[in-house]
This record gives sequence, structure tokens and C-alpha cells, in this order.
Amino acid sequence: MTAVGIDAVEIWTGKLVLDLPGTFAPVKGEEPEKYTKGIGLEASSFPDVYEDIVTMGANAAKRLMERRGLTPDDIGRIDVATESSFDNSKPVSTYIAGCLEQLYEEDFHHANKGERKFACIAGTQSLDDAYNWIKAGRNRGRSALVIATDTALYERGDPGEATQGAGAVAMLISEDPDLVELSTEQGYGSADETDFLKPNQQFPSVDGKRSVQVYLARMREALEDYESVAGDTHPDDFEYIPFHTPFPGMVRKAALLGYRHMTRDTDVEAAMADEIGRQPREADFGSWDEFEAAIRDYMDALKKTESYRDWYARAIEPTLAISEQVGNWYTGSVHIARISALKNAAEAGRSLSGDRMLVGSYGSGAQAEIHAETVQDGWLDEIDALNIDAQLDRRYDLSYDEYEQVHDAHNHEKETEVEEFTAPEDEFVFTGWGRMNERKYEYVE
Amino acid sequence: MTAVGIDAVEIWTGKLVLDLPGTFAPVKGEEPEKYTKGIGLEASSFPDVYEDIVTMGANAAKRLMERRGLTPDDIGRIDVATESSFDNSKPVSTYIAGCLEQLYEEDFHHANKGERKFACIAGTQSLDDAYNWIKAGRNRGRSALVIATDTALYERGDPGEATQGAGAVAMLISEDPDLVELSTEQGYGSADETDFLKPNQQFPSVDGKRSVQVYLARMREALEDYESVAGDTHPDDFEYIPFHTPFPGMVRKAALLGYRHMTRDTDVEAAMADEIGRQPREADFGSWDEFEAAIRDYMDALKKTESYRDWYARAIEPTLAISEQVGNWYTGSVHIARISALKNAAEAGRSLSGDRMLVGSYGSGAQAEIHAETVQDGWLDEIDALNIDAQLDRRYDLSYDEYEQVHDAHNHEKETEVEEFTAPEDEFVFTGWGRMNERKYEYVE
Repeated sequence: MTAVGIDAVEIWTGKLVLDLPGTFAPVKGEEPEKYTKGIGLEASSFPDVYEDIVTMGANAAKRLMERRGLTPDDIGRIDVATESSFDNSKPVSTYIAGCLEQLYEEDFHHANKGERKFACIAGTQSLDDAYNWIKAGRNRGRSALVIATDTALYERGDPGEATQGAGAVAMLISEDPDLVELSTEQGYGSADETDFLKPNQQFPSVDGKRSVQVYLARMREALEDYESVAGDTHPDDFEYIPFHTPFPGMVRKAALLGYRHMTRDTDVEAAMADEIGRQPREADFGSWDEFEAAIRDYMDALKKTESYRDWYARAIEPTLAISEQVGNWYTGSVHIARISALKNAAEAGRSLSGDRMLVGSYGSGAQAEIHAETVQDGWLDEIDALNIDAQLDRRYDLSYDEYEQVHDAHNHEKETEVEEFTAPEDEFVFTGWGRMNERKYEYVE
Repeated sequence: MTAVGIDAVEIWTGKLVLDLPGTFAPVKGEEPEKYTKGIGLEASSFPDVYEDIVTMGANAAKRLMERRGLTPDDIGRIDVATESSFDNSKPVSTYIAGCLEQLYEEDFHHANKGERKFACIAGTQSLDDAYNWIKAGRNRGRSALVIATDTALYERGDPGEATQGAGAVAMLISEDPDLVELSTEQGYGSADETDFLKPNQQFPSVDGKRSVQVYLARMREALEDYESVAGDTHPDDFEYIPFHTPFPGMVRKAALLGYRHMTRDTDVEAAMADEIGRQPREADFGSWDEFEAAIRDYMDALKKTESYRDWYARAIEPTLAISEQVGNWYTGSVHIARISALKNAAEAGRSLSGDRMLVGSYGSGAQAEIHAETVQDGWLDEIDALNIDAQLDRRYDLSYDEYEQVHDAHNHEKETEVEEFTAPEDEFVFTGWGRMNERKYEYVE
């Protein structure tokens, strides 16, 4: 059977930016390093007042279709992944299709539209649905459009406030893809957890400490489950390892744990043994506490090894570059980590065709999924065609007062009259509410 | 490749019942026939105060797993379809898995869990995702558990109030299924429509007249799209045609339209020509209005023919029997229509193995999907094992005052203290809220 995977990709960032060390930290009375070093973020993207999950998703999808010369007849499926939905029945994909239909003579009436929800992992689940649909022989030669779109907002004053973000990633899933082929093999780690949820509320209830533990525990299960079908992993197997990135500091923890797991019983562990010893094995300890303490010591030492630092600089650090500038995009987050890695390789003039990546997705509540991807020959043209830096550079830089207005403007509980900060051009915008409380959209030239 | 489809099924009805002609009609000052003949409903199921979409889904799934002797290791995927979700991030499937894990030694950590939303069609979309996952070779020999669960409540006084309902359908999707094999071929009719939506609200905004038009328009597109890949349909091809059934009166309209479409240019049309003429063709009319008027006349005549009435009594009427007693179950509705048909055949002692059904799913917002199913050899044992009549009979019969209390108890905006009407036994129940506003559940023996 032919390869199936991501054929093309586009992003759309919210058009406003909050400078965390420069604007947010001083008002909070914090050192800038709390953000830049601690959680690892420079800035968060926010939607302008005429932007929302529909406009960002539709604008990313429009760029993708235009660039690839696609018409609605080429698309058999439109799936949206989001945890920022504003309707309990009608899916966001219908709104996005409605937007796109304003620009094309054809319609999307033949396309299956859907919406998936599972915190930040639903984007990857939608990717998998599209992959399976093609592999099942149901696509009739058409591609799927998968759109991960979110406005990640927290209650004002919540510790998560520094990790906000807003943006959309549109992905085209096809046979013989240009960007990456997905592996059939997948690993899952999934449990009923109360770490982060939004029970009948727009902003999340978060147990931050628990959330970090759950991310690591589920990711570890997913890696073990993946290895049970795909065989053991080794750091040298993968050029990049894009993780879901709620904030880069979380990925630092996951990467260290992943490196320890992948190097156990390998040449890498053996080579480091003189320097930091072998990894502690539970059987060698009298109690779990002693074992845990030994693991912590080993991890502290491992983190400082040249072996780990080289690997982190090569396989992990490049996946974080966009995230550092935009914050958490929830369902889109792991997908901008992938793009970030490929963009890094393109800028470094590296040859990647045929190389592999390991991709770690995660959603609170909670579930991790791990699969492999093989970079395809067309990857460089695809990545070169993106305008990510231009999108990031053109964002309007919010003052703290303006940030407060923007937060209120997107708060479903508040009625506000906030002027737009940027002028929309060649894009879809939210124009107001209809008689059944539906949201209405128009294309602005 | 082996057949893939529905291997087993179970339902769980809300444990309360509202008698529409006997209890609802008198208070509303309406004739009972408005409900029994007009919309075609005798009663609606409601959840008791300790029931919700999680308990109903978990209870249906538990029955299914128990009856089939399954353990968590047999299940690789749990997908929930609902438009009654109470969380914008954490999927209902995690809550249901958490319930089931209370009863098993194993856990579901290896199982991909998800949630789909697209009004009433998400149950069928989840079925398709599971089918595709198996066909793509990703299931590792495991089955998928698909659960369609909803509490279909309307604002008090809304015209939809007479079409409420609550219940869950659990379906096991496997290779070599016992109940029905699904066709690879599918037809879609999908458009961005504002007929029914729930923008940040529990109860829907509905344009009833538009909703009927959209159902018929999308279903017609789906049938044409299905025929474009599977070939022309004929009434004799299918033993039963289960439709999404918001209320049986809607299906009467869809069935007549479908019959006209399927019989065009066939022996059936020719045989009826002496009695009612041939179907009007647009080319024969000077204006669209004249053509439309002729179509209406033809449909009025067609409805009265023996040919149509026989077909309706054989292929459609039996799909409505459960729906008439429980109302609209949203995502579960088309799946109880399928069960209703098979139950009818079992009770009539009919042999169905190898026979085909055409299944018409629909969700407002709006999308219709049509596919075919082939009844498998194990169907009779599966259907005989269900206890649907017992579940319907044991429901507590609400007075109108009690109905008002129950409606308030399930209204997210109201704080109420309503006593339970039935005593839970061997089932999962909602027990209250946790510190992060999460809903909590226990198994009651």
C-alpha cells in the first residue's frame, strides 16, 4: 500500500502578541527569567477581536488550499480538533467549510465534516482518523483537511496565564504525501485523570503539579506501548522528537525521562557508565523510596552529560523554537513542534529525506500517543513555502492594558466593546451574531 | 480482507418515562393524536437524577462487555459520540473508562479514547472511525467500543419539548462481526446550515421548519452520493432502511422522498404508471414552480399506492418501534432504529442472514451519511440476548409535576434538590462534584 501522511501544512497565528519578559513580568513583579528560562516562553499569541477558532482555522486552510492549487472537490473530509468550541452541537468544521465556500465556486457538500475533543491530543487523533480513512480505502482519491485550532486562555491570575496562546494548524492528509509518512504503529498511555478540565466553563480548572506528573506518566506508558509493537527505540533512530509543548519547560522534563528510557540497556548507557554509573534498576533496591531517590540522582547526573546535552540540542531544542514565540496552541501544539523541527533543518541546510521522527502527543484528562514519521522527499519545498516568520513578526505588540482588554473581549461571560488592533486583509473575520446565536463570518479583501 | 462491522450492541434507556398522549398532552391542552399520529411518539425516556450521559453510556457498555465476556484487554479504542457533553476539554470516554475500571482488574490505559461531536450524526462517524481503524490494520486484534449517549432536552415550552429523550447505545466494532458488516461505500450530503445549534448553551436554538427541509435536502444528496459509488439503489435491495429518527413523523417524510428517488426509472415506477402516472421530470416543465407543484401532486398520490404502503410497512415502520417509546436519543437514534428493525425480524421469525439494510444517518448543522449493511449469521443470537422490552417496561412513569422536577434537575443553570424516583441496582450512578468541578461516579450493587 502507498504511504499515507501529511502532504502539506499551514499555520495561522493570532495577530496579537504579549511579550512575557518585557510586558507581563514587570506588571506581575516577576523576574523576566521566570518566563524565559523557567517555563521557556518569550511570548504568547492572542487573537484580535475579529479572530476566533473559526477564522484562524479557515485562514490557515485557505492558505493551504491556495498554495497547493486545491479546490473543494480535492477534499473528502474536514476534521477540526479543538477544546475551545463555542457550540455543543454544531461542529466548527461546518463553519470553516462555510467560510471557504465563500471563495470557491464548488462546495464541500460531499465532504465528511467532524469535530474531535480530547484536550490537546485531539489534533493527532484527527490526523489518525484521516490516515485510517485513506488506508481503509474510503477516500475516493481525495485528501483530508485536518485543522487544529484553539484559543488557550486561562482565568486571569491563574498560574497558566503565562502559558496562553492562540493559533491554528491546517494539515492536508494524502496518499504519497510530500512532508511526512505516518507509521502504522502507535503507542497509547491513557487514563481517567483529573488534572485539567473545563466542566461547563470556558477557562480550565487546573491542578498544575498533577498535570506535569500525568503528562510524564502517560507519555512513558505510550512509549512502552509503542515499543511493544515497533521494537525498542534508540536516540539515534530519530532526527527530531516533537512533543506536545504546553510550555518548553514541560518538554525538558519529558525529554530527560525519554532519554533515560531509550538509552537503558544500550551502548549509550554503557558509554556513560564510567561518568555517571548505570541506570538504577528496581531489583537492586530494598524499597521503592530508595529506588526513586537513586533515579533522581541519576537523572540529575544524566542531564549534565555531554551525551544528553548533544542529543537534546539536536533532537529536542529545535522543536521548541516556534512554541517559544507563540505559547500553547493546545491541539496545534505538537504540530507546530514538528514544523519547528523541519524549519530548523531547512535553515541549517540539512538533508532529511528518509529520516525519521518520533512524535509524542498529549492531552490532559489524560492520554499520550506516540508514533513515528518518515520525512518525505518534498519536505523542503513544503517548509520553504511557509511564511511563519513573517506571521510572527507582523503581530501587534500588546501593552498590558491592551492585553487585559483582549482577554475580556474573548471571555464569553463579558460584554465588551474593544476596537480591533490590526486591520484585516485577505482573511476571514468574525462579524457578529445571527438570530439563532450563530456566529457569522465574512471574507475581507 | 475480512468483514468489519458491528459485533454486538446494548442499549441503556433513561429510567424515567413521560407519557406524551396521557400525561403531556392534557396539560398542554392538546389532543393525544398530535403526538401519537402527528409526530409519531408515545413516550419519552428521561434520566433519573443520578443518571447522565456517563452513567447511561457506562451501563450500556458494562452490559455489553459482561454479556460477551470481554475484559479491557479486548478493547483498543473507546469513542463516545454526544451533543450533551458537560466538559469542553475532557472527553466523556475517559469518565466511562474510569467507571468500567472500577469493575475490572485490568485497566484501559492502552485504549485510545475520544469524543466526537456533530449533532446526531456523531455516533455514525465514530462507528466509521472504528471501522477505518480496523481496516487500516491498527487494531492489533482488538475491538472498538463506540458509545452514543445523549440527554436530548429542550427549553421548557419549546416545540421540541415533545421530542425529548435520553439513552445510550453501546456498540462493539470488530473483525468478523456477529451483527452487521458495514459497506466501504458511503454517501455524504453536508452543508453549513443554521437549523439547530447550541451556542454556549445547554438547550438548542431550533428552526423547526428549516430543520425538516435540511434533513431532506442533505439526505437526498447523501443518497445520490452513495449511488455514485455503489450504483443505483432499488427498494427491493434492502430489507430495512433505518433512518435517524428525531421523531417518526420526520422519517415518514424522508421515506417517501427516498422511495420516489429509488423507484425513478425502475420497474416499480412503470408498474404504478397506470395508477398515478410517471414521476414528473424537470425537463417537461416550463418553470420550477410548475415542476414543484407536479412533484407534490405525485408524492401525494405515491403515498397512497399499495406499492409504497407495502414497502413502508416492511422496510420503514419496523425501524420506528423503539423510538416511539423513548423519543429522540440524538447520537443513538439511528442505532436504535437498526436494533428496532432487527428485533422486529427476530420476533417475526424471519431469516435475515446475508440480507442488506440501507442506513441513513443525520446531524443538524448539517450532514447526512448513507451506507449499506449486510446482516451477519450471528444476528439472531445477538438480538435475542437484548432486554430492551424489560428496560422499557421498568421505567418509572412520571406525573407532569415530576417531569418538571426532572427537567430542572438536569438543567445546568438550576440548583435543585430532587429525590430519585427509582432505586439504582447493579449500575453506575452519579454521586456529586469533586474539588475541580469534575463529576464523580460509583458502582451501586
